[in-house]
Amino acid sequence: MEISAKQVKELRDKTGAGMMDCKKALQSSGGDEQKALNWLREKGISKAQKRTDREASEGVIGSYVHMNGKIGVLVEINCETDFVAKSDKFQEFAKNVSMQIAATSPVCIGPEDLPAELVEQEKEVYANQARGEGKPEDVVEKIVQGRLKKYYKEVCLLEQPFIKDDSLRIQDLINELTAVLGEKMSIRRFVRMQVGEATE
Amino acid sequence: MEISAKQVKELRDKTGAGMMDCKKALQSSGGDEQKALNWLREKGISKAQKRTDREASEGVIGSYVHMNGKIGVLVEINCETDFVAKSDKFQEFAKNVSMQIAATSPVCIGPEDLPAELVEQEKEVYANQARGEGKPEDVVEKIVQGRLKKYYKEVCLLEQPFIKDDSLRIQDLINELTAVLGEKMSIRRFVRMQVGEATE
Repeated sequence: MEISAKQVKELRDKTGAGMMDCKKALQSSGGDEQKALNWLREKGISKAQKRTDREASEGVIGSYVHMNGKIGVLVEINCETDFVAKSDKFQEFAKNVSMQIAATSPVCIGPEDLPAELVEQEKEVYANQARGEGKPEDVVEKIVQGRLKKYYKEVCLLEQPFIKDDSLRIQDLINELTAVLGEKMSIRRFVRMQVGEATE
Repeated sequence: MEISAKQVKELRDKTGAGMMDCKKALQSSGGDEQKALNWLREKGISKAQKRTDREASEGVIGSYVHMNGKIGVLVEINCETDFVAKSDKFQEFAKNVSMQIAATSPVCIGPEDLPAELVEQEKEVYANQARGEGKPEDVVEKIVQGRLKKYYKEVCLLEQPFIKDDSLRIQDLINELTAVLGEKMSIRRFVRMQVGEATE
């Protein structure tokens, strides 16, 4: 079976095994990478159990625990260099975003992260509310768009007003910081945990 | 349509709306709770957008961020009373478990949380390794069980040796603390974040 150089390289990157071993592993596994990984482990050539899980991105994990220890937050904020990641301004931003999440419990980072069904459901509720108030059909759509915008400001982190200065959205803080520090930056993910809350 | 008192009560607990409103909402929604929630919102009777998400459990969110801010951990540890949750011993345990997770990056809390396919895959690898070493089939199964136990000690938090005293497993620490504080306690969930790691 023909094994491509790309496949061999990927397996090498994951296992640190030699080129010929990787090729042999892939050949005896019909090109299936997971089987090749197991083949290498069985032969004792590789002990790699996890995929190498680093991407090229710098940044910091911000955290905040509410005084009484009932709420905790982690947030990953990325930038381009470790130099910027270590800067006071960037670290302060990470702390502020963590506090924001603890206080406001956003559902997601940006509007594009909301499930489409949830948005549709919201729109339907707003439309029925507006109709229930006797609004004519041609203004209902305008009302729906306005309320949807308000909804985003409640549940999307980037659209929320900053708890320490509500004239700025979190996205505005990012834009300012990007201008000051001269690097692209983004909020990648967050977790908020509260003692005793229900989980799926 | 017949609506049970139980359904009405559940909707009341979630919305804070009056009993008759809840009954009407359920009747006009054919007993579908989500639709009833929307009905109440449309009528302006309830603004509840989220399910009430508290269960009866006390505890604390432990956290730990590695000095350089590249790794962060949150862990929820439950007990029975807020009194115990606030005690020094319990808080110290939460901090220790957070540090443990930051250092060892466990896959899950206990062996029962591992996906069955993953366990099967591990067993197959061990069996093939043992056969590759020429072991007779009747000892292969013993070897597999032994290695599986070792695997659990690596990837399951409760089975891991405590980083500050490797004569004790994390489960042993819980057992000790339960005896001292006189309350049932458990590690409910954890999150570990590392800057730049790949995510699904």
